[in-house]
Amino acid sequence: MSFEEMWAELLPIGRDAAGGYHRFAWTPPELECRAWFLDEAARRDLEIERDANGNLYAWWLPADGSREDAVLTGSHLDSVPGGGAFDGPLGVVSAFAAIDLLRERGYVPARPIGVAAFAEEEGARFGVACLGSRLLAGAIAPERARGLRDGDGRSFAEVLVAHGMDPDRIGPDEGLLARIGCYVELHVEQGRALQQPVGVASSIVPHGRWRLDFTGEGNHAGTTLIRDRRDPMLPFAITVLAARQAADRNAALATIGKVAVTPNGVNAIPSRVTAWLDSRGPIDDAVRRTVEEIGRAARAAAGAHGVAVELAEESYTEVVSFDTGLRERLLKVLPDAPVLPTGAGHDAGILAARVPTAMLFVRNPTGVSHAPAEHAEPDDCLAGVEALAAVLDDLARG
Amino acid sequence: MSFEEMWAELLPIGRDAAGGYHRFAWTPPELECRAWFLDEAARRDLEIERDANGNLYAWWLPADGSREDAVLTGSHLDSVPGGGAFDGPLGVVSAFAAIDLLRERGYVPARPIGVAAFAEEEGARFGVACLGSRLLAGAIAPERARGLRDGDGRSFAEVLVAHGMDPDRIGPDEGLLARIGCYVELHVEQGRALQQPVGVASSIVPHGRWRLDFTGEGNHAGTTLIRDRRDPMLPFAITVLAARQAADRNAALATIGKVAVTPNGVNAIPSRVTAWLDSRGPIDDAVRRTVEEIGRAARAAAGAHGVAVELAEESYTEVVSFDTGLRERLLKVLPDAPVLPTGAGHDAGILAARVPTAMLFVRNPTGVSHAPAEHAEPDDCLAGVEALAAVLDDLARG
Repeated sequence: MSFEEMWAELLPIGRDAAGGYHRFAWTPPELECRAWFLDEAARRDLEIERDANGNLYAWWLPADGSREDAVLTGSHLDSVPGGGAFDGPLGVVSAFAAIDLLRERGYVPARPIGVAAFAEEEGARFGVACLGSRLLAGAIAPERARGLRDGDGRSFAEVLVAHGMDPDRIGPDEGLLARIGCYVELHVEQGRALQQPVGVASSIVPHGRWRLDFTGEGNHAGTTLIRDRRDPMLPFAITVLAARQAADRNAALATIGKVAVTPNGVNAIPSRVTAWLDSRGPIDDAVRRTVEEIGRAARAAAGAHGVAVELAEESYTEVVSFDTGLRERLLKVLPDAPVLPTGAGHDAGILAARVPTAMLFVRNPTGVSHAPAEHAEPDDCLAGVEALAAVLDDLARG
Repeated sequence: MSFEEMWAELLPIGRDAAGGYHRFAWTPPELECRAWFLDEAARRDLEIERDANGNLYAWWLPADGSREDAVLTGSHLDSVPGGGAFDGPLGVVSAFAAIDLLRERGYVPARPIGVAAFAEEEGARFGVACLGSRLLAGAIAPERARGLRDGDGRSFAEVLVAHGMDPDRIGPDEGLLARIGCYVELHVEQGRALQQPVGVASSIVPHGRWRLDFTGEGNHAGTTLIRDRRDPMLPFAITVLAARQAADRNAALATIGKVAVTPNGVNAIPSRVTAWLDSRGPIDDAVRRTVEEIGRAARAAAGAHGVAVELAEESYTEVVSFDTGLRERLLKVLPDAPVLPTGAGHDAGILAARVPTAMLFVRNPTGVSHAPAEHAEPDDCLAGVEALAAVLDDLARG
C-alpha cells in the first residue's frame, strides 16, 4: 500500500457533492475511516491499541518488545462539516507511509514507533475540539465530556455506549502517557505561511471557542409591530460586526461561522439565536480583550432590543510553545525547514502539556483549509513522508 | 365530540418540549392531523373529498344531494416550526363544532357546507406559503411547485408520489372552484388588534418572501488573515440591520427569521449564508420600496466584503381586499364584530382571487403567534364557534 493507494482508499469516504468531507466522530463515514486505520495497521503487523477515550494506536515495537519511551506520530481522521481531504488524514497516511519507507530501508527501531488517530479533533460533533486527546491528557473533566451533546441531542456518554465503550472509564490515562516519549504530528499547513514543501512548527497561537445565546420573544413576522418586537436576530447581527471590529483593533481573529436559529421559520420572529465565536491571536491578552469587547457589544445590543444574552466559554487554549529540544532535534534532521507558528489547534497542542511534542507542516498552495479547496501537491505530500521518516529514524534510533 | 374534546385530541400531536408545534406537510405529525380530520368527518357522516393538490374537504350535503354553490369553511392543520396550537387547527375544529351546533338546532342546509384543510399553508416545508390553496386556485405554476424542495432536498413531486398522489395532476381545479359559492375562514388573530372575542377581516396587507444568498469563500477560522477573508456572515449581518432600517423608513415590516449557514462549523469561515426575508406593509409600494432598499444595502455590503449576493422573490401577494358583499352579510349576522385588516397571510387570501371570501378572527390575548405562547381563551373559542355557526346558518339557508 503506497501513499497514493492509501490516499485513494480514504478519498471517497464521507465526501459530499461539492467535494467537502463530513466525517464526524462515530458517524458512519468516520467509522469507515477507523476500519481503514485498523486494516492498515493489521496489514503491517502493527499492534493495535484502543484507549478508553476513543483514540486508536498502531504500534511498531522494537525487537526487544519494549512498549516504553515510544515515538508517537499520527493525527486524526474526523473532519469539520464540508472540510478538506488533508486536515487530519494526511498525518495518519504519512505515518503509515513513513513506516513503510523505514522498513524498505531495513531500519530497525530501538524504541516503539506508534501511529495515533485521535478522536473528535475538530469538535464538529460534540463542540469541544481535540476531545480524544484532551481526555487522554486530562485537559477536560470526564464529567463534562460525558454530558456534551451533539446536534441531535445525543450525549457523548450515550454515543460511547452505543459503540461498545464505557463512559465511566474515560479520562486521563497516565499509564499510556508515561509510555509516550514524544509526539510528532504531521499536518497540512492551513494558511499561506509555508513556502517550502515541509516546515516545522514553533507554536500554536492562543485560541478558543465561545457560545453566545441571544434570547428574545418568538412571534409572528406579519402581525407584530416593530415596537413590540424582541428580535434576537438584530443584536446577533450587531455582534457579528462588532466581532470583526474587535479583532481588527486587537490584531486578533474573530469568526462567527456557526449559527442556530430557533424556530428558524421564514414567517416567525426568532425566539433565540445561538452563535459560536472562534477567536485566536498571537498573544493571550489580545484574544481575551477581543472576546471581552465582543461580549460588551453583544450585551449593549441585546439590551437595546429587549433581548437577553449569555456569553459562555466552551474551550480556551493558551499559547502552546512546542518543546525546544525536540524541535532542535527535528531541525538537525531537516536543516532547511522553516520554523513557523500556526493559528490552527491540533492534538499536538493538547499533548504538548504532557509530553515533548513537535509538528511538521506540509505546504498548502491554496491557503484554504476546512473547505473543499484545501490542498497539498502530491510531491509535497511525499516530501512530508520523507521528512517524517527521517525524523522517526532519528528519534527511534535510541 | 365537543370542541374541547376535539381540541384535546389534537393537542399532543407534534408538540415539542417547549410546547411548540412541528407539523410540517406530509410529515408524521401532520399525517396524524389529517387522519384526525378524516375521523371527524366520518364520525359526522360528512362526504370526504381529496383534491389532486393535497387538500382535504368534508361535505355536509343538503337534502337534495346538490354539490353546487357550496359554503366552504375551514383552515389548515400544518404549523411553522415551533408554532402555536391555534394557527390553523382553530379554524378546522371550529368548523366541525359549528356543524354540530347547527345539527343540534335541527338546522337543514339548503347549500352544501364544507370543511377544508388546506395543505402546506405555512410553507414551512417547501418554502411557498399556502401551497395547497395556491395550486387549487392557479396561483402557482404546477411545474414550479413540483420542483420545490424541502430542507432534506426532497422535491414536492417526490413527496406527493410517496403519499400516493400524482404530481402530474396538481394545479388549478376549475371544477372544484366552480362548486365553491363562498369561503369563510375562521382564524386566531395574530396580533393585538382585536379587543373583542370575534372580529371580521377587511383585508390582508401586501406580503411576500425573498431569499438572499451570500456566497463567499469557505476557509479556516484560525489561519485565514482578515484581509484574505471573503466571509458572507458580515454582509449578511449588515443586511439584517439594513432590513430593520428600511422597514422603519417605509412604515412596513421586514423580518429575517430563517438562516442557513454552510458549512456551519465553529472553526470555519462560512462559504455561504442564505437568509429568508419576510416583508409586509399596508401598501404595495411600501413593501416594494423596503425590499429594494434591503437589496441595495445587501449588494453594497457584499461588494465591500468580496462576497456575491443574489436576491430572489419566492412569493409575493398584493393587498387582498375581501369581498365587500360577503363581509356586509357577515356583519348583518354579527353586528357588533369589529372589522380589521391583518398582516398575516391565509388560504383565504389566495382563494379571494377566485371566489367570494371572508374571514372571522378570534381574539388572541397574548398578541403572540407562530410561537408557543399563541393563545385564545376557551370562551373566545366558543364565541368563535357560535359566530361561525351563525354565519353558516345565514349563508347556507339558500
